[in-house]
Amino acid sequence: MKPNFSLRLRIFNLNCWGIPYLSKHRGDRVKRLGDFLNMESFDLALLEEVWSEQDFQYLRQKLLPTYPASHYFRSGVIGSGLCVFSKHPIQEITQHVYTLNGYPYMIHHGDWFCGKAVGLLVLHLSGLVLNVYVTHLHAEYNRQKDIYLAHRVAQAWELAQFIQCVSLGLTGEVGWGQGLRGGQGPTSRWAQLVRRELLPHQPGSPSHTSKKADVVLLCGDLNLHPKDLGCRLLKEWTGLHDAYLETRDFKGSEEGCTMVPENCYVNQRELQPFPFGIRIDYVLYKAVSGFYISCKTLRTTTGRDPHSGTPLSDHEALMATLCVRHSPPQHTPSPTHGGPAERSRLISVLKEAWAELDLGMAQARWWATFAGYVIGLGLLLLALLCALAAGGGVREVAIMLWAPSVGLLLGAGAVYLFHMQEAKGLSRARAELQHMLGRAREAHDLDPESQAALFLGQQEGDRSEEQ
Amino acid sequence: MKPNFSLRLRIFNLNCWGIPYLSKHRGDRVKRLGDFLNMESFDLALLEEVWSEQDFQYLRQKLLPTYPASHYFRSGVIGSGLCVFSKHPIQEITQHVYTLNGYPYMIHHGDWFCGKAVGLLVLHLSGLVLNVYVTHLHAEYNRQKDIYLAHRVAQAWELAQFIQCVSLGLTGEVGWGQGLRGGQGPTSRWAQLVRRELLPHQPGSPSHTSKKADVVLLCGDLNLHPKDLGCRLLKEWTGLHDAYLETRDFKGSEEGCTMVPENCYVNQRELQPFPFGIRIDYVLYKAVSGFYISCKTLRTTTGRDPHSGTPLSDHEALMATLCVRHSPPQHTPSPTHGGPAERSRLISVLKEAWAELDLGMAQARWWATFAGYVIGLGLLLLALLCALAAGGGVREVAIMLWAPSVGLLLGAGAVYLFHMQEAKGLSRARAELQHMLGRAREAHDLDPESQAALFLGQQEGDRSEEQ
Repeated sequence: MKPNFSLRLRIFNLNCWGIPYLSKHRGDRVKRLGDFLNMESFDLALLEEVWSEQDFQYLRQKLLPTYPASHYFRSGVIGSGLCVFSKHPIQEITQHVYTLNGYPYMIHHGDWFCGKAVGLLVLHLSGLVLNVYVTHLHAEYNRQKDIYLAHRVAQAWELAQFIQCVSLGLTGEVGWGQGLRGGQGPTSRWAQLVRRELLPHQPGSPSHTSKKADVVLLCGDLNLHPKDLGCRLLKEWTGLHDAYLETRDFKGSEEGCTMVPENCYVNQRELQPFPFGIRIDYVLYKAVSGFYISCKTLRTTTGRDPHSGTPLSDHEALMATLCVRHSPPQHTPSPTHGGPAERSRLISVLKEAWAELDLGMAQARWWATFAGYVIGLGLLLLALLCALAAGGGVREVAIMLWAPSVGLLLGAGAVYLFHMQEAKGLSRARAELQHMLGRAREAHDLDPESQAALFLGQQEGDRSEEQ
Repeated sequence: MKPNFSLRLRIFNLNCWGIPYLSKHRGDRVKRLGDFLNMESFDLALLEEVWSEQDFQYLRQKLLPTYPASHYFRSGVIGSGLCVFSKHPIQEITQHVYTLNGYPYMIHHGDWFCGKAVGLLVLHLSGLVLNVYVTHLHAEYNRQKDIYLAHRVAQAWELAQFIQCVSLGLTGEVGWGQGLRGGQGPTSRWAQLVRRELLPHQPGSPSHTSKKADVVLLCGDLNLHPKDLGCRLLKEWTGLHDAYLETRDFKGSEEGCTMVPENCYVNQRELQPFPFGIRIDYVLYKAVSGFYISCKTLRTTTGRDPHSGTPLSDHEALMATLCVRHSPPQHTPSPTHGGPAERSRLISVLKEAWAELDLGMAQARWWATFAGYVIGLGLLLLALLCALAAGGGVREVAIMLWAPSVGLLLGAGAVYLFHMQEAKGLSRARAELQHMLGRAREAHDLDPESQAALFLGQQEGDRSEEQ
């Protein structure tokens, strides 16, 4: 690789709102999306909510000359809705299906049936290893009373763990971009420093500064606002940078929103508390080990298709031009940059996530216990009905009530099993968080400077809990 | 790290057969296991089938002085049964729950409820990064008519993908141990070469020879015999070495079997076709990037506890002493070692796995279609019963039949959803295999030497299919 190596990547991301029979003008929108992608010839187009595999196959055929490589990520009953089209060959493909993803009995929400997942493609471009993740987290149906919050936080944690495990050398150096719009600091580098500081035997020789991917890119619909717990957890733990916060050249919707009131497909009532709309779709990135990545330009659609006037989806598309080059010395931070403020911010967000999962676990256990009582009641009722049916008098009524009581029993059994599984899933994520928190605290305690910052971080955490 | 660096690791693995209320002498065996682990003071003890979290907590308390770090991997309704005790601090913990894991209506088999998984711990020992995987795949209940075969192959593939993704740099060098007992060749190195050969722009500079873990260790109950498709797929794709095949110093049961007829807890009827028993528990390992790992000694129990005379479990324990050191020049193979025979063996096993998953998919779809018809029939029946109940004559009988027909409808609906999900899961693994097979073939076609070997590999594949 030449010392003046430089690579330009043009990325497209869109939640396509492609629900068969339900999404308006689906066929027409998919057709126009294909035309647009062919015309623009991005390096990568990452799509979410392509629920119909026929839509994917249609796009695959249509885009074959421009994007010879493609993949559809299958999971759950319906499918993850994720797919990708690439101008460059895809070296590896894999996916991780989130352990927790809503409730099967919330049929009208449907998320459980989709098997929400994160898909990974590995590309090799001019000798550079690029890990591209595409994901779609559980939707938020009611921000005031969000029954899926614990699941979304658990998903964000699984996503962060998956990215860290797959992409990063445990003792790897991270090259950081420059925050221009007040982006959050690169504390995940500190997460690595935690590990290094806790290793008395770690000689830290450069030959063991290992890494896998040179560049990590995450696109998708996170269903998280930028300040939401899940989003902070993901960014703090992985050190991913937000293209919108980093770029100097942004054009598009107000405040980078990806669901805007100008879009005719958007439910205007849901957006009422947010006059400019909400930002829940992201292009996030980082470079590892001696590389530097920056976002040259970021564009969004603005509720209208640039050509035909009607939007491509109820979400806005993100179009980013990223530039990767060898990191100049001034951009390679020394390993001592992981300051106490960054550390306490990580500890604070880990604690917050732990508390949220704990709450979710208590609720899951409550539901499992409740279902247990209903099972007991159902059994009693069934025994009573059998006795009545055998006995005489109200024989017909008793027999009529068999069906609902058997249904109740089966339903309660399923609910019991499901919530037991939910509690196990949340307990697993909580245990992982607790482990990391323990290690982070240990490292923190080694540094007396950190105490004041930790105190400040705790205060911040308390404030956000009060809100 | 010193040039004459050398690390000795003592590993213990046991499937504990710890089913509450069902496994014989559970309490006593868990107690004796704790005593034994404390006495032997291994570096790592990896346990499967610790189904009761109370057993884990008991062991944790008991082993705390000798093994300060421990973790229980929670998943599914019951739990994965996996846990680990370590003398050294655990840096990172994560797990991956297998997408496919049997059928919920096979309650007497129970695997579905466990949420079988692979757990990962990352240890840092004297500057060495050690990734330790512990797993337990779906049990085999009937070897002649194994309805779970496709699921176990899919699990083996997910396991192999998880290990490769997490542990290995995509362009990493692999240091190979020496096969002493005719172990299968290290073809996963070739899997990496496939990637390298297919990269015209890949400069292959040593600075981009990236890696994450220095040593990868996989222990557990794979429920796979050494020549089974899943086992071959796992070994060929990951390049993991089998401690039993590699070691010069083995003592224990005949042919390294881990379920032996001498064990009083073993179902003798099931072992009838195998006079020495079966080998389904493994210690597998590999070293990456300039390290060399070998198995100095391997011991198994032989159906009797060495101290009290009764066995610790229905499985035999594996006790391995591994030695890791810097790889001397003669053990660092040149990148050209990936010969045509190895390549065609990989292609052959990928094809075989693809075919098995394809078969599984067809069956899953058949069941989904069948359940669809049953749903239709159930609806018709219910309508008929309503009409009869309203009409007169056989009113009471009609009402009595409501309950079973509602049950049928709900059951068939659940079966339909489940098998749709199963088909999606199998289809996903098949698509990943197909992608890898495509790339492997492309690379193979570049090398005219390979053609004869491919032909031989195909013949071998055909033979194994005939058996």
